[in-house]
Amino acid sequence: MTTSKVSGARVWRVGAEVNTDALAPGHTMKHGIEVVAKHCLESVRPDFAAGVQRGDVLVAGADFGIGSSREQAASALVHLGLAAVIAPSYSGLYFRNAFNVGLLLLTCPRAEELAESERISFDARAGSILRADGQTLAIDPIPGFLLDMVEAGGLLAQLRRRLAAKEPT
Amino acid sequence: MTTSKVSGARVWRVGAEVNTDALAPGHTMKHGIEVVAKHCLESVRPDFAAGVQRGDVLVAGADFGIGSSREQAASALVHLGLAAVIAPSYSGLYFRNAFNVGLLLLTCPRAEELAESERISFDARAGSILRADGQTLAIDPIPGFLLDMVEAGGLLAQLRRRLAAKEPT
Repeated sequence: MTTSKVSGARVWRVGAEVNTDALAPGHTMKHGIEVVAKHCLESVRPDFAAGVQRGDVLVAGADFGIGSSREQAASALVHLGLAAVIAPSYSGLYFRNAFNVGLLLLTCPRAEELAESERISFDARAGSILRADGQTLAIDPIPGFLLDMVEAGGLLAQLRRRLAAKEPT
Repeated sequence: MTTSKVSGARVWRVGAEVNTDALAPGHTMKHGIEVVAKHCLESVRPDFAAGVQRGDVLVAGADFGIGSSREQAASALVHLGLAAVIAPSYSGLYFRNAFNVGLLLLTCPRAEELAESERISFDARAGSILRADGQTLAIDPIPGFLLDMVEAGGLLAQLRRRLAAKEPT
């Protein structure tokens, strides 16, 4: 389950303009998310899908998630157990899909200062990333209702829980 | 009401990184949307709020809508009758809020080629902008369910209609 506060997360670095075809390759689109996830980022980081551990973070350059509206481009990262993506900016559609499927995106103008394999901590509600050397990077504030949704596992999971609890949605 | 197909829309130009405080100035936050809308973009285009006509479009540079999550930054433009915003990229939060409140955002890598006061047509479902000189600019595809939502007047308006029609949501 995604949480908005994480300690000691390992950084995987990719560049700018990582597109949805790199995240969810076209040749896997007939298959389930287990297969899509195995091929996630194979064209830019062939070591990623097999090596990523639950709780790791993906750090990218600007315009992460451009391309198509395929939801698997976000849900593959959820399936792999990623704690968050950290980038200076995202495609608008990707941002929408990601929170809906329970993937936390942190918008951090200085994301690219983070190094490959570095261990970081973050608190999305406090709006900061803490580096191993004690340096802090600011992240753009995320409204509480979106953090609640992502922590609940996404939009559908949150609606199901609320209906089960008979709370007003 | 927003439609995904518009003819002869007049272009209002602004630059890159137009933020939510320019769209919905802090000093208007205690007031209703009528007041917020009157001050929309006053710091970057003082002629905009008084001059904009229903069906006009706002054309901007990259990272439109960065800043806070205030929804008024999108609903002020809906209140002013804007047909669409056209920009190369948006803040993820702004993209989410805009469609939710019924504001159409077109993602167009070459948006900044459009000129002040030029008349354009667009068809969001077909994915193109037609200039007065016959030139076509591509816009990134938007999923049909998002266009349906924006045409219905946003998320809440769409849910209300569906509930009233007793369709499954």
